Amino acid sequence: MSEGTRIAVIGAGAFGTALATVVARRGEPVILLGRDSDRMEAVQQRRINELSLPGITLPDGLAATTDKARLQSADTILLAVPAQALRTAVRTYHDSISEKASLVICAKGIERESGQFLADVLGKEMPDNPAAVLSGPGFAADIARGLPTAMTLAGTDISTAEALAERLSGSRFRLYASDDLSGVQTGGALKNVLAIACGIVEGRGLGDSARAALIARGLAELMRFSAAHGGRARTVSGLSGLGDLVLTATSHQSRNLRFGIALGKGQGPDALMAPGAPLSEGAFTATVAARISLEKRIDMPITQEVAAILRGDSSVEDAVENLMTRPLKSE
Amino acid sequence: MSEGTRIAVIGAGAFGTALATVVARRGEPVILLGRDSDRMEAVQQRRINELSLPGITLPDGLAATTDKARLQSADTILLAVPAQALRTAVRTYHDSISEKASLVICAKGIERESGQFLADVLGKEMPDNPAAVLSGPGFAADIARGLPTAMTLAGTDISTAEALAERLSGSRFRLYASDDLSGVQTGGALKNVLAIACGIVEGRGLGDSARAALIARGLAELMRFSAAHGGRARTVSGLSGLGDLVLTATSHQSRNLRFGIALGKGQGPDALMAPGAPLSEGAFTATVAARISLEKRIDMPITQEVAAILRGDSSVEDAVENLMTRPLKSE
Repeated sequence: MSEGTRIAVIGAGAFGTALATVVARRGEPVILLGRDSDRMEAVQQRRINELSLPGITLPDGLAATTDKARLQSADTILLAVPAQALRTAVRTYHDSISEKASLVICAKGIERESGQFLADVLGKEMPDNPAAVLSGPGFAADIARGLPTAMTLAGTDISTAEALAERLSGSRFRLYASDDLSGVQTGGALKNVLAIACGIVEGRGLGDSARAALIARGLAELMRFSAAHGGRARTVSGLSGLGDLVLTATSHQSRNLRFGIALGKGQGPDALMAPGAPLSEGAFTATVAARISLEKRIDMPITQEVAAILRGDSSVEDAVENLMTRPLKSE
Repeated sequence: MSEGTRIAVIGAGAFGTALATVVARRGEPVILLGRDSDRMEAVQQRRINELSLPGITLPDGLAATTDKARLQSADTILLAVPAQALRTAVRTYHDSISEKASLVICAKGIERESGQFLADVLGKEMPDNPAAVLSGPGFAADIARGLPTAMTLAGTDISTAEALAERLSGSRFRLYASDDLSGVQTGGALKNVLAIACGIVEGRGLGDSARAALIARGLAELMRFSAAHGGRARTVSGLSGLGDLVLTATSHQSRNLRFGIALGKGQGPDALMAPGAPLSEGAFTATVAARISLEKRIDMPITQEVAAILRGDSSVEDAVENLMTRPLKSE
């Protein structure tokens, strides 16, 4: 291994640690790069990421470090940082990344300040590197525990995506390749908004039937948004759209669902979005997506209602009422 | 009202009673027709269907009866009997039904003996009556409690479907019209098979991520099956396909999900399908659909694995392993 480790993960949160674990379990060495040296030292020594992924023993081949020079040998780098931190992370590590390294975005969402999707952010910052997006229904804990999971790996062309999918899959962590970057990214971002809506329905005790209907109507909304950005319907109805939507909208492990439940139970949006409150990516995406839907005239009633609640322009009661009393029409 | 009541529901189970309740709450009289005279008498007198829908007070306009002569005035008849009982029910009431009455099938599934979808069964038995299908995510208890629900009403043409949808909707029970009878029926039948698969995953403790992936891959399977029967992808990704699939596969109120959970926990299929055990429509549909998928060469790995388990040809462990180790491919 004089040539160094070829796969690296930037971001030692739960998801990044889980992905590094999958690679190392397959027998391939992997770098897990974090920022906090005390913490990364503890992860490296104790073979457990107590803060982010408790209960999971890290495989031998996983090297936890803060030494960005170790990125230089990597031909595949997973960017497992939050959506809003992607640009800063890329700028921080820019000089240590080979121009030939494939960069895989492992976050979902829209950059707040620019309104851009993450592949566009990355394309601006690192225009020469091949870029890909990992998305779909995979909780870090499920992946790390070795439970069966299936996600989508989208690249700009299908053969690159297939090669990366093969390279990063484990025996129970299965990646399906796609060349529909737009479809995958719009699904990953918008599903968080719909999860908030599902949380509201759950928080108000409106029942499983209402939630299921909202997921189906929400998927239609997601398809329209995606199509307006060049995404394919088939992508949206697949793992990275529907699969992730179902996971986020039905599992209480989801932060966006819990955010919506709190709204549905009567907590005000201001308190829920105050500094220090748990981050709901969907709350920010809702505002951006609602604006885009008006600009591009995309029919997105659920997203509009969520955005109106968050702005304080609509009550939860009125929003539910508005959604339920829309004129009947065909599907 | 000398001309008699114009809307009738055949079948006084939970779903039929809930549908009759919606109509009567709107202020329109409705007949709820059952077979057991003691029971129907009790429902009529006590204004509650204690056996099927406890806790719901029935509106005044709902008349519970066993008198099939009262069907004669109805121009809209909802057939809320189990899939396997549809043909017998239609034969029983045939002579009391006006040739002009619209008949709305409210069951989901494939007739076991003939392998036919229910609209075909009805078309054979009552070829002159306009036929429609009500399907989608609606638990009887949610509908009867007045919680918001949205379902699909499919007819042979869109204007008839729209008229029926308007006629049967309540303020919080919303019907969307469709003219895709094949898409709606294949979705309603197949989702039960996929719910069994999701139950197996849950029963074995494989995690929410695995279940979400299975729902997404299952929807793709449902789309292929539906397309082979002339159904549209958009229908399958709507309320009657995806919406119902999500409901059935994630809510423990679902019998098919519970059947799958029991399989996943190690109970044998023979005991679960013994006479007297709770009926799982999906168990029968799995066998028929697996046969059709082979005949028509439709790629349906999940359905095939469920059918193999039920036949005793595969263990739950092997089925999960087979599904997870399929060759990686693009979505």
